[in-house]
Amino acid sequence: MKALMKTEAKPGAELREVPIPKLAPREVLVKVKACSICGTDQHIYGWDKWAQSRVKAPMIFGHEFAGEVVERGSLVSKVEIGDHVSGETHIADYNCFQCRIANAHICENLKILGVDTNGSYAEYIAIPENNAIHNDKSIPHEVATAQEPLGNAVHTVFAQDISGRRVSIFGCGPIGLCSIMLCKAAGATEIYAVDANEYRLNMARKLGATLTINASSEDPAKRILKETGKGVDVFLEMSGHEPALKAGFESLRGGGDVAILGVFPKEVTMDINNYIVFKSATVRGINGRKLFSTWYKVAAFQKSGAVDLRKIITHKFKLEEYGKAFELLKSGNCGKIVMIP
Amino acid sequence: MKALMKTEAKPGAELREVPIPKLAPREVLVKVKACSICGTDQHIYGWDKWAQSRVKAPMIFGHEFAGEVVERGSLVSKVEIGDHVSGETHIADYNCFQCRIANAHICENLKILGVDTNGSYAEYIAIPENNAIHNDKSIPHEVATAQEPLGNAVHTVFAQDISGRRVSIFGCGPIGLCSIMLCKAAGATEIYAVDANEYRLNMARKLGATLTINASSEDPAKRILKETGKGVDVFLEMSGHEPALKAGFESLRGGGDVAILGVFPKEVTMDINNYIVFKSATVRGINGRKLFSTWYKVAAFQKSGAVDLRKIITHKFKLEEYGKAFELLKSGNCGKIVMIP
Amino acid sequence: MKALMKTEAKPGAELREVPIPKLAPREVLVKVKACSICGTDQHIYGWDKWAQSRVKAPMIFGHEFAGEVVERGSLVSKVEIGDHVSGETHIADYNCFQCRIANAHICENLKILGVDTNGSYAEYIAIPENNAIHNDKSIPHEVATAQEPLGNAVHTVFAQDISGRRVSIFGCGPIGLCSIMLCKAAGATEIYAVDANEYRLNMARKLGATLTINASSEDPAKRILKETGKGVDVFLEMSGHEPALKAGFESLRGGGDVAILGVFPKEVTMDINNYIVFKSATVRGINGRKLFSTWYKVAAFQKSGAVDLRKIITHKFKLEEYGKAFELLKSGNCGKIVMIP
Amino acid sequence: MKALMKTEAKPGAELREVPIPKLAPREVLVKVKACSICGTDQHIYGWDKWAQSRVKAPMIFGHEFAGEVVERGSLVSKVEIGDHVSGETHIADYNCFQCRIANAHICENLKILGVDTNGSYAEYIAIPENNAIHNDKSIPHEVATAQEPLGNAVHTVFAQDISGRRVSIFGCGPIGLCSIMLCKAAGATEIYAVDANEYRLNMARKLGATLTINASSEDPAKRILKETGKGVDVFLEMSGHEPALKAGFESLRGGGDVAILGVFPKEVTMDINNYIVFKSATVRGINGRKLFSTWYKVAAFQKSGAVDLRKIITHKFKLEEYGKAFELLKSGNCGKIVMIP
Repeated sequence: MKALMKTEAKPGAELREVPIPKLAPREVLVKVKACSICGTDQHIYGWDKWAQSRVKAPMIFGHEFAGEVVERGSLVSKVEIGDHVSGETHIADYNCFQCRIANAHICENLKILGVDTNGSYAEYIAIPENNAIHNDKSIPHEVATAQEPLGNAVHTVFAQDISGRRVSIFGCGPIGLCSIMLCKAAGATEIYAVDANEYRLNMARKLGATLTINASSEDPAKRILKETGKGVDVFLEMSGHEPALKAGFESLRGGGDVAILGVFPKEVTMDINNYIVFKSATVRGINGRKLFSTWYKVAAFQKSGAVDLRKIITHKFKLEEYGKAFELLKSGNCGKIVMIP
Repeated sequence: MKALMKTEAKPGAELREVPIPKLAPREVLVKVKACSICGTDQHIYGWDKWAQSRVKAPMIFGHEFAGEVVERGSLVSKVEIGDHVSGETHIADYNCFQCRIANAHICENLKILGVDTNGSYAEYIAIPENNAIHNDKSIPHEVATAQEPLGNAVHTVFAQDISGRRVSIFGCGPIGLCSIMLCKAAGATEIYAVDANEYRLNMARKLGATLTINASSEDPAKRILKETGKGVDVFLEMSGHEPALKAGFESLRGGGDVAILGVFPKEVTMDINNYIVFKSATVRGINGRKLFSTWYKVAAFQKSGAVDLRKIITHKFKLEEYGKAFELLKSGNCGKIVMIP
Repeated sequence: MKALMKTEAKPGAELREVPIPKLAPREVLVKVKACSICGTDQHIYGWDKWAQSRVKAPMIFGHEFAGEVVERGSLVSKVEIGDHVSGETHIADYNCFQCRIANAHICENLKILGVDTNGSYAEYIAIPENNAIHNDKSIPHEVATAQEPLGNAVHTVFAQDISGRRVSIFGCGPIGLCSIMLCKAAGATEIYAVDANEYRLNMARKLGATLTINASSEDPAKRILKETGKGVDVFLEMSGHEPALKAGFESLRGGGDVAILGVFPKEVTMDINNYIVFKSATVRGINGRKLFSTWYKVAAFQKSGAVDLRKIITHKFKLEEYGKAFELLKSGNCGKIVMIP
Repeated sequence: MKALMKTEAKPGAELREVPIPKLAPREVLVKVKACSICGTDQHIYGWDKWAQSRVKAPMIFGHEFAGEVVERGSLVSKVEIGDHVSGETHIADYNCFQCRIANAHICENLKILGVDTNGSYAEYIAIPENNAIHNDKSIPHEVATAQEPLGNAVHTVFAQDISGRRVSIFGCGPIGLCSIMLCKAAGATEIYAVDANEYRLNMARKLGATLTINASSEDPAKRILKETGKGVDVFLEMSGHEPALKAGFESLRGGGDVAILGVFPKEVTMDINNYIVFKSATVRGINGRKLFSTWYKVAAFQKSGAVDLRKIITHKFKLEEYGKAFELLKSGNCGKIVMIP
């Protein structure tokens, strides 16, 4: 089969012909009908420090996908051939302390698809049956592939109350954009969306942000404080950008809630007294999706029509055009990019 | 001044001329610009068992209102003449254990406006300054009077998570109707509204119920179970009707949440094993409004446009026409009824 | 092997010689070193209405046990031969909606050991490896068998805050007694234990109840209200007795928490207005143990010494003496009764 | 009256004779029978950067105290002459948004006794009646003065579940020591106490720490990880020391809870990815005491005997001996120091 691989420990990737994966007894083989690009893939493609320390070439990368089950391992019982599925990308052991206390998303032996194992930038992928999430067949695969990052947004947004509250969202990549849709659906009364890219701020406005702030031309903390008086009730950090983290805390009201999904390129310097202690803030770190309550919400919001993933998917490429796709993502002038193997 | 009074311990009421109330040092005098009718007023008007046991005639009843502050007691510091206000109807002492642990809505020495003290069916009312809730002057008084029951709905609906969940609402009086608007605003994915009155079910549909069920012609538990498979995630009881309570529990999924605002005419018989224990349900009793976080949400949802109280106000009368108003309410063929003193 | 069976649909039981169970691929065979009697077993033995409607004779009953793993099914990976284990008695499918949202204790396809499947009153029992809970080998089997009901107590007690609060416990059977130990360990400032049996009230006192109330000679609601002024913060219902349910609600303060584990012989009549609505109570139904966070707490409290199950185990019989054991339990003059197969 | 004052903007303090304070209408005058020294007082005495930026000399400092009410303002209604009281040191306006949503401890117009207003290092102090907390007369004043920091500990410890969990406490000053007593009372199964002072670690051991770690001679993160395998469930930061903050996060398990009461001398540098995001940690900033639920818990734990403040009070001085007292505190070889005016 065709597969986009990290063949060497250096920037870039290569399309190769490789054998279709063999199945373990509890795995299913999925014909990948659509896959999409996450910031993580960009790190791997660009071969930054994190990628160098974590990823072992050669391997197939990519983890967002949707497709059809074409083969079942000998012990599979929950998934049928022909099922349409997305992949939960966190492979848990369901046996450790964290898994046994309902924290499988931070399993002690967690493996991440397309990072620690072969991924989805390929014609086929083998995944544990537990990780195959059934999709309603009415959802096109090229939309369903974006459910995984929608799940990150669901996990982040609903880590605290949203209804009737004012929310700031720093970072308007696809997960930030999904969060805007979710905050709107959940009755946030103000949604302040912050980014430095006009393309994305424009999308944010269309998806329901009540105010967009271009951090390259305006101080977002000052602006949010001006608009709200005392700051927002909820701050969602989705940028992994230190100045955003600071501005978000500065424009948070006392007693407010913070959820951090963004991953930072290095240690950050923080005024912990004023940001957390005196402010009596509650800060939650967010990782992956709750297994599997998040996925039920992902399905529910789409079924009700409150969230339409089509609105964040802006570009579609053939897998062979991966070079163009990664270049476009680098520019930031896009929402979610889908590739068809 | 003109005042609608319970003059004797019997059904009915009487319009009388009485002196304008004198103010205690921490009270303000409000010129009542609009008042509205609550189920409680109907109990007092009809002089049912509850009213007989609780209300001492002669007194002015009514507690939902909005108006303008025209006089301040000598120690008032938080309210100015000319302010537009609604009244929080629970008068707490802010000194007891419950008040000191942030439960002023169940103050140990609670008095209810228009039940335990003279109420708002009059040209003027004296209320403690703490109970004067500032209204944005853009809200007409005849809309603002309905914020108090909207507050009951806010308290009930947000006693548990709503976003992305399926909700049943039993009872489509004004508070039930407000709850439908709130559930819709908060991203409930299905809203099943149950009542026996077609007028109200029709309103429910317009306000966002995804399905209405007429309990006089269809078994609501069966229908909800048929629609949902396993039952709803959240059941809001707003009818005070025993069969509704039962149907609500029967159509709740395991691990679901229940909020009960309805008040029942007598003890109810319950299968506590199957409704609560085996079902691992969480049941919350709801009383009044959280002081004062509920009022901030009441304002926020109106300001954002998510809730428009105009949609539940169906009739307007002069205070003198109280007889017609109470008759109409008895028929159930109305939403919120406003009276102008 | 020797097994205590319900051989016919009538009161009583019979000791029989039956084949050792064969293992499914994911099951383990446990040599039962100790088993113990639960109220449920008493219902089955006595063949009451519930038992008649649920249990299909012939079957081996009993579900509390501890022992040693002696054989593994072909696909078992988490349990080794020689492991000391207790049994989680709720067999979940780990595939349904409830299991996938971390509610395996109310799995949609739940089977209960010794009720829906062959149980532990036998020399050997076959259980799914997921249900084998590892015990520290320092815990004697005849103590470890009581961890399952301790788990019920952990689930009930920690369904709400306990530290620094006043608690009433209605019902001082083994689970009630475990709850007393847990409330004491968790820093409840007053523990009011209610029962009608002096033997058990005496145990309650020794285990940490600050006051015991014999409901056959004193009105428990009045007494608790007298002691507390406004009622307790937390009411744990562990009796399945309607007057206890009422007394518990009556002696609960406004805004208090209720956890109900007791199962009632029939529908109960409740003043839902005063017990739940006006009181703004939160009521939680409790079923089984949280899988598996409860078991980690069970282990932690024993390891720290805060809970010593030896203190609630009052009698030990050979399995052959089951007649005596069930007779003793009927009298109520006992704590937990252990049987050795 | 005699008063210990910050007379000039420089290190040290001076005992002066000043007039007894005059009362505002809602204030009471308290004869200070005992006061005690907080770290904040040490900052003011030593005149560090924070003190320079916040405190305006001349003023009486000190805020922990207990005494007897000797005079009432004209509108006081909740406090009687002769009442024994402690002082809640956060003076809120009970009118702002934060106060009205039950966050009076972070009032938007907060004043702190002995920091923003004249304090308790004096023979008399005037405080708002709302800030006078009634003490049981059986508690000696020189014990009651330490209830205010006990309240900080209550607020911090019970910001998350403690029962049956493993806890690390970094910083064994008086609040840390109170926290150890509370964690023990609440059934924490392991309490790891960390400090660099042997005197305090010795106290920690006596009060219930299951292990003490001297951070000057041993790496606390390594040790806690060695003891626990996966880290503690709860980390309480009470030192305001950057290396402690880091060690605390490093020895926290995934999904753990953090409460930060410590105030840091400057910005800290944090690996936010590994400490919060990937770890899915929940971090809560703690400020003051919840008004007034914390105070009810403070009373409850003392009444039940679970907390005995005598155990943390190690030294008593006359107010005139303040020089010695502050010198002793600087050495760290003390628990709580009480002064008698």
